[in-house]
Amino acid sequence: MQNFDFYNPTKIVFGTETIARLSKLVPPAARVLLLYGGSSAQKNGTLDEVRAALGAREVQDFGGIEPNPTYETLMRAVEQIRREKLDFLLAVGGGSVIDGTKFIAAAVNFEGDPWSIMESHGRVVKSALPYGSVLTLPATGSEMNNGGVVTRKATMSKLAFSSSHVYPQFSILDPSKTFSLPVRQVANGVADAFTHIVEQYLTYPADGMVQDRFAEGLLQTLIEIGPKAIADPEDYAIRANLMWVATLALNGLIGAGVPQDWATHMIGHELTARYGIDHARTLSIILPSNLQIRRESKHAKLLQYAERVWHLSEGSEEERIDAAIEKTRAFFESLEIKTRLRDYDIGADAIDLLINQLQAHGMTQLGEHKDVTLAVSRRVLEASL
Amino acid sequence: MQNFDFYNPTKIVFGTETIARLSKLVPPAARVLLLYGGSSAQKNGTLDEVRAALGAREVQDFGGIEPNPTYETLMRAVEQIRREKLDFLLAVGGGSVIDGTKFIAAAVNFEGDPWSIMESHGRVVKSALPYGSVLTLPATGSEMNNGGVVTRKATMSKLAFSSSHVYPQFSILDPSKTFSLPVRQVANGVADAFTHIVEQYLTYPADGMVQDRFAEGLLQTLIEIGPKAIADPEDYAIRANLMWVATLALNGLIGAGVPQDWATHMIGHELTARYGIDHARTLSIILPSNLQIRRESKHAKLLQYAERVWHLSEGSEEERIDAAIEKTRAFFESLEIKTRLRDYDIGADAIDLLINQLQAHGMTQLGEHKDVTLAVSRRVLEASL
Repeated sequence: MQNFDFYNPTKIVFGTETIARLSKLVPPAARVLLLYGGSSAQKNGTLDEVRAALGAREVQDFGGIEPNPTYETLMRAVEQIRREKLDFLLAVGGGSVIDGTKFIAAAVNFEGDPWSIMESHGRVVKSALPYGSVLTLPATGSEMNNGGVVTRKATMSKLAFSSSHVYPQFSILDPSKTFSLPVRQVANGVADAFTHIVEQYLTYPADGMVQDRFAEGLLQTLIEIGPKAIADPEDYAIRANLMWVATLALNGLIGAGVPQDWATHMIGHELTARYGIDHARTLSIILPSNLQIRRESKHAKLLQYAERVWHLSEGSEEERIDAAIEKTRAFFESLEIKTRLRDYDIGADAIDLLINQLQAHGMTQLGEHKDVTLAVSRRVLEASL
Repeated sequence: MQNFDFYNPTKIVFGTETIARLSKLVPPAARVLLLYGGSSAQKNGTLDEVRAALGAREVQDFGGIEPNPTYETLMRAVEQIRREKLDFLLAVGGGSVIDGTKFIAAAVNFEGDPWSIMESHGRVVKSALPYGSVLTLPATGSEMNNGGVVTRKATMSKLAFSSSHVYPQFSILDPSKTFSLPVRQVANGVADAFTHIVEQYLTYPADGMVQDRFAEGLLQTLIEIGPKAIADPEDYAIRANLMWVATLALNGLIGAGVPQDWATHMIGHELTARYGIDHARTLSIILPSNLQIRRESKHAKLLQYAERVWHLSEGSEEERIDAAIEKTRAFFESLEIKTRLRDYDIGADAIDLLINQLQAHGMTQLGEHKDVTLAVSRRVLEASL
């Protein structure tokens, strides 16, 4: 096991009828900016519940945070907070709203060019406004971690940052708030959480027995509940497990003390930045071919994944690995997520451009061995056509 | 899944050569009380390393915290802290030292009878001194939770308390510091962690798929590494996994959102309070008979435990349950822990006395259904003879 630090001070409030607890979770004298995305949080009544719980506090709105939140949008919120002297942020939504809120929290008091927060991957952040979240979409784990991803429209750059200053103070997770989600978003959430786990698990053996058992348990749970979450949107137990899996998939626990990959994410980010493909769908396109191209360096863990996650014990080692990768692709497809670039009308001519984007963003040594050079990323993209 | 809150702000610093990081983890101006147990932390050099890392800070000692720390001893530390105006506690040891430090941290500024902290199970605690820990014995999980157990010698009472104010600020877990532990303590640690997991897992089905997979993963890991940890004391990977399992067994995670039992612990506490039997050994005596006596109300989970933890799929349901309970007992015995009261020279004549102790401590409705009355506890004790 590798040396590690683990620290996660976010308070999770999980279950039905929990939004009312905002009345105690948010400081009584807070001047609140309520941040959200499109109209769904309004339509399904969540925003009304939130406002009721906040009672007589000063509350202003900032709606319209887009999927893959943009620097340009988020900086307008920063201006509003400074102008109106607001001091507490409350994100209501999924990973995009919470990621965006993290950036805003870090940018409000930041002196200097705020984009340097992203370019430094968060290293320059020295403080942040306090904030909480009400999660409506299980997927990214942003509700219980210190990382975020922001896109700059002007340059088509999608970068990640993290800082110990941007953990949510609290996150409210009410699984029944996910009942009204579109199928597409639920499927994306399952695929996103699945890939988060794989990025921290499917590397090379490092004596992390605890981490491996936890990762395998989360993957098995997703395999069991993913299709059910889509087929029966109002099954509370299924949605509760999906929500808790997605949070634990990226709260730092299963990745503590073991190697991590993240090449699939970094290549996927370029697909979203350039073509606007849903984040989770880019992962579903890249992950199977990433595992295929890098199967030699991932050999031992691919066999473990085949046996412990997919219960594949027949055939040669290479046949089991092939079957496990094929099962992974089939799982995504069972969620009605297409897993080939051609399904999104992207052909071989796009690859040079994507490689150039990776190079421009410094993504030239990815993966647990830092051996995913641009040449390897090219092979992964070619295998994803 | 049940509604739950999860909050755990303790920072874990895990791995080799981590004690030196105390120089940054402890506030520079802190006036430190260093708390420890017997002479082992001194003999194996850990205390010297700790003192070196603390540098020029004012550091006083309080040694001699016993296994099953006593109120009488701990109150002497409280007096020293008040008299010497110390403001930061550093526990170096295992669960007893850390539990004791929690009580001390809560008692220093407490107005009123400090024993009421225990009698109220922590409800009266409104603040606590900050403290950190250096863990030398993987077992209780005290290094990453907010609970402790204290014994009052005068009345032979062993009570538990918890409070959100007594989480350690940080805990340093260096697995190599466990190499020199006596076999008996390592075995006890394995049995203690195992039982912590079972108390939160083996109740009744509550749709906690994530919690179940995590609990099963921790149990499987202990079954795999327990004997190895004893056979090869300097296998770092084994000791690292043991240390991390023991912490995760009782940091609030696997018990969040699911029913919990704890009857084995409450009955076991009386054995320690009365006869001084090691805590873990009392659990190893009580757990198998507790499962046997309550097998009907635990039927579904016992079958799941048999299948998923012990891979027992042959025979009738009752046969599988019998086999799983027998495997549990055999596991403890494989750690050279005796699992019968008679092995400790305790006979049937002790049972009335133990039942009276349970009654005196209000332990009359134990377990996940609160149906473990004194009559049921009596049957459990009789089955433990």
